[in-house]
Amino acid sequence: MKPLTGVRVIDLTQILSGPFATQILADLGAEVIKIEPLWGDKARQNGPEKVGRSTYFASLNRGKKSVAVDLKNPRGREIVSGLASAADVLVENFRPGVMDRLGLGYSTLRNQHPRLIYAACSGFGRGNGYSGRPALDIVIQAMAGTMSVTGTSDGEPVKVGFSVGDVGAGLYLALGIMAALQGRHVTGQGCLVDISMLESQAALLENAFARYFATAEVPGPLGSRHAVMAPFQAFRTLDGYLVVAVSTQAHWQKLCHVLDLPELAADQNLATSEGRVMNRTQWEPVLNVRFREQPTQVWLERLSQANIPAGPINTVAQASREPALAERDLFIDVNYAGVPFRVVGTPMIFDQARPVADGQVPDLGEHTKEVLRAVLNLGPEDIAALYEVGAIR
Amino acid sequence: MKPLTGVRVIDLTQILSGPFATQILADLGAEVIKIEPLWGDKARQNGPEKVGRSTYFASLNRGKKSVAVDLKNPRGREIVSGLASAADVLVENFRPGVMDRLGLGYSTLRNQHPRLIYAACSGFGRGNGYSGRPALDIVIQAMAGTMSVTGTSDGEPVKVGFSVGDVGAGLYLALGIMAALQGRHVTGQGCLVDISMLESQAALLENAFARYFATAEVPGPLGSRHAVMAPFQAFRTLDGYLVVAVSTQAHWQKLCHVLDLPELAADQNLATSEGRVMNRTQWEPVLNVRFREQPTQVWLERLSQANIPAGPINTVAQASREPALAERDLFIDVNYAGVPFRVVGTPMIFDQARPVADGQVPDLGEHTKEVLRAVLNLGPEDIAALYEVGAIR
Repeated sequence: MKPLTGVRVIDLTQILSGPFATQILADLGAEVIKIEPLWGDKARQNGPEKVGRSTYFASLNRGKKSVAVDLKNPRGREIVSGLASAADVLVENFRPGVMDRLGLGYSTLRNQHPRLIYAACSGFGRGNGYSGRPALDIVIQAMAGTMSVTGTSDGEPVKVGFSVGDVGAGLYLALGIMAALQGRHVTGQGCLVDISMLESQAALLENAFARYFATAEVPGPLGSRHAVMAPFQAFRTLDGYLVVAVSTQAHWQKLCHVLDLPELAADQNLATSEGRVMNRTQWEPVLNVRFREQPTQVWLERLSQANIPAGPINTVAQASREPALAERDLFIDVNYAGVPFRVVGTPMIFDQARPVADGQVPDLGEHTKEVLRAVLNLGPEDIAALYEVGAIR
Repeated sequence: MKPLTGVRVIDLTQILSGPFATQILADLGAEVIKIEPLWGDKARQNGPEKVGRSTYFASLNRGKKSVAVDLKNPRGREIVSGLASAADVLVENFRPGVMDRLGLGYSTLRNQHPRLIYAACSGFGRGNGYSGRPALDIVIQAMAGTMSVTGTSDGEPVKVGFSVGDVGAGLYLALGIMAALQGRHVTGQGCLVDISMLESQAALLENAFARYFATAEVPGPLGSRHAVMAPFQAFRTLDGYLVVAVSTQAHWQKLCHVLDLPELAADQNLATSEGRVMNRTQWEPVLNVRFREQPTQVWLERLSQANIPAGPINTVAQASREPALAERDLFIDVNYAGVPFRVVGTPMIFDQARPVADGQVPDLGEHTKEVLRAVLNLGPEDIAALYEVGAIR
């Protein structure tokens, strides 16, 4: 049995942070009812397309049910209110205030269903001066300090190459929902979960903030280097790049042995990570020259034999073939209106089984009738009337 | 009441991924009993130091109880086994096999306590050819493809400027534990949660994998740019940098208006994000010139008035003063053996209250006696005998 079996989630989120969270819930066994506007989640338009279907959407929405509802229509709002009353969790990532203006705010929904967990994710959280502002991934990465510590000090500003501003918030959103579920077993009450993308990003960076508060030194970008450990970085080899991560004195000694550099091993200035961080010019050029002498694979084998943490810098293509990913069945096949896509499944394994939502990615409104019938007990005539007034699709 | 009140966690993890996860659990109200070797979690040695105490450790271990136990001593192993029997969750981030060799493996502990949730986090997960290999953050970032999509195509390899390989895995570890807690309410049974750092990292990147599988195009580093949206990047201004995130046609039109570039607004080649990604040379140089004409603050005000998502590229120091962080009390003060540290709290708010563990960071073994007495009902003589044989500290 999947761990969230029996949990029903009404999901009003779009694009990335919210759907990333509810994808986790669906993989873990929750019933996720995705409420979309009549024109669909904007992510359905995001490229690249494959036979007219969005790869982006396919990667985030397997195993969810799609119900298309016009929230501007009072009958549409009644539907969402009814579904919320029959659910454990409602999730939304509108700007703060939007749900209240629709008459679907937390206090209203809670009054009719005190066990409801209402989870909201927004750029800056609720109830502060920034709440109304729009925020997308790069804005969050920029404002939280992520971009200031990524890249090199002499290069142009760079962001993290995936949408960490969104997925970080999505992970905390899923955590907040699960914590509220656990709390409800004790209190019998739902609650309001408020997630700020900016706060979530700062929490991922926390070590950088703690260091700044403790020392007043402002961390800068270090390329591939680590702030307090060395060598902990990339090196060019004869045919590419590798990374080495030395975190103990024993590993430093072993590394010097693998590289045949006894004079560095003996240097007391370099005996600690602190010493190696302070005296980079003494050893970095030497290691740079030495690593260039052999191809990546040769070095990785020698480093592996010495049990020193190291690895190749893989492209996404190479990573997809890494045995530690490919042989663990992390990559799964899903089906979006007949078009097959291969995506990443959940990285959580329970009792040696990887839970995964069924592999169907819903078309817009594919489950509208089914959900209205099964959850709200509406008959065919009620449903026909809702179509007629344009409340559903 | 905090949502995880009443949940007891035996925490054998060290350094980063595991302690990051159990910090979340402690903030949310769980009782986290941190089992350390007699010489302590290695993170206690990680700099920078403040009055002899580690900032790094302080940022990850507030509100936990420290019990120092020698796992090489049979009496020490008995203690851990006894604590596990009185707990809801046991977490460890040893290499797979270590706990089994200590006689503390999942099957043994489960036999004596079927409700126990046993959560393990390792570089490559359990039961595969890579399981025994060491992995640290940069190795995970390199192998999963993160470094291949971060930075610029003409620059040196760069990693994400915080330990996303560790904290990503830590977030999935916390999620797996909470999902198992929810599942246990239904089944009455615990389970084994297996988290691979490499898989967790790949899951964060998932869009990149889905795009590669769909198109066979290998994503490369894009600097501050986005793969399918534009302009969604950094621009240099008169006095610094800002980022702009345009995701809709309406925002593109508004941006051209703010920048007074009607000829770009009218250009049909640039009417869609796809068109702007394909025809970067037509508009990027024009925008580069225009943004350089005014200081960051002037542009941010104009962009904000037009409701276009934008923001400054903050240093960590600037980010710490952002009202959307500082005014939300995300930063909290903790106390490590009398030394004060300021760290990042949890980014999850429940019913307008931010749960946070008590602000005491434990000294090594600070709670050994208290826990042995309260949880295992040991008397003063039993405890004295354990000290004598070196099983505890």
